Amino acid sequence: MARVAVVLSGCGVFDGSEIHEAVGVLYHLSRNGVAYQCFAPDVDQMHVVNHATGQVDEGATRSVLVESARIARGEITPLSELKAGDFDAVFFPGGFGAAKNLCTFATQGAGCDVESDVARVLNDFRDAGKPIGLCCIAPVLAAKALPGCAVTIGNDPGTAEAIRSMGSEHVEKPVTAAHTDEAHRVVTAPAYMYGEAPIHEVIEGIGEMVASTLALVGSGARA
Amino acid sequence: MARVAVVLSGCGVFDGSEIHEAVGVLYHLSRNGVAYQCFAPDVDQMHVVNHATGQVDEGATRSVLVESARIARGEITPLSELKAGDFDAVFFPGGFGAAKNLCTFATQGAGCDVESDVARVLNDFRDAGKPIGLCCIAPVLAAKALPGCAVTIGNDPGTAEAIRSMGSEHVEKPVTAAHTDEAHRVVTAPAYMYGEAPIHEVIEGIGEMVASTLALVGSGARA
Repeated sequence: MARVAVVLSGCGVFDGSEIHEAVGVLYHLSRNGVAYQCFAPDVDQMHVVNHATGQVDEGATRSVLVESARIARGEITPLSELKAGDFDAVFFPGGFGAAKNLCTFATQGAGCDVESDVARVLNDFRDAGKPIGLCCIAPVLAAKALPGCAVTIGNDPGTAEAIRSMGSEHVEKPVTAAHTDEAHRVVTAPAYMYGEAPIHEVIEGIGEMVASTLALVGSGARA
Repeated sequence: MARVAVVLSGCGVFDGSEIHEAVGVLYHLSRNGVAYQCFAPDVDQMHVVNHATGQVDEGATRSVLVESARIARGEITPLSELKAGDFDAVFFPGGFGAAKNLCTFATQGAGCDVESDVARVLNDFRDAGKPIGLCCIAPVLAAKALPGCAVTIGNDPGTAEAIRSMGSEHVEKPVTAAHTDEAHRVVTAPAYMYGEAPIHEVIEGIGEMVASTLALVGSGARA
């Protein structure tokens, strides 16, 4: 049985992991008979957003690790403990948390910094020839940390341009599809980058991303 | 196209809606071409639980409505505004929030009180002959508010006994199945009452609950 890591960034589309996407990843892993372990950085969220109003709750603080545990039903491990040698693949669901808590893309765009453990994990999986699956806005993490890769980001022109500015390539795909960059062993899907897509199409596209990533497990070192 | 209401109780298994179950309900509704609107009571949660440690965060307060909006991607309506005349069915996902924030079952067992808007909604849908779908621990709401109905609750003897004490009936079903009480138009599934079940089996059982509930839409008044 394959064993994979899932990296969360909080719990809620506006300040953490997009919940439907994160659950979609876990659901499709489980359907494929794959065991997963959830991780998150032990840092404070950039924002706490009131999801009923969309407003930032100024002065409020929440931990990315503790809030991610809500999606993981309590089973969460600090990202600092994630070692590529222990897993066959790694997945990053989307949500603004990926752009706010796993890197600074939300505020700095193409000039963003990637959180140190996230950058280490991406490089370690790449060096080990192990596949990386990402969806929604999370592909900016691969575009920045592993320049030269080709990723989906929906059809937003500004985000696509930022991907190119990072030295990577944007591939437009519909919500139900995924793209595999064979050379970089990076698989991506747009998910809620199409913000009006129905949840079942988002989860269908995530299923394609999960299946295509798992198809690369054990297929040898990267090109 | 059918139109249904989904009643949430926060965001996280230990103090709110069980996230996988809530997403599973929305996913299967969307797959079935059904439009949904999410509701939650505009009250404080009974508890805020740190999901990484399982400990109650004493002194912390969070709103059931605001936290539920995380699952609903911002599209949440106060439960006080839910009218049975506007919808074809109503669904209640589980999680401790159903037993802590929608009624007092978590602390009072069979002698619990059901939150006033929850009781009103259950009675209004019942009186209109419109089906009600519930999973995990949420069936205690129907068992209490609509005594005489037959519901699932997994295989926990204490909870089954509480259902009987409320004047209702417990039906044991596996995690992938649902039970329909035709007379009361109540459909239930055990979901994470089997706490060790894999997520894909929980979501499969929720799919059965959703399909069986939708099958009752428009089939006339209750027996």
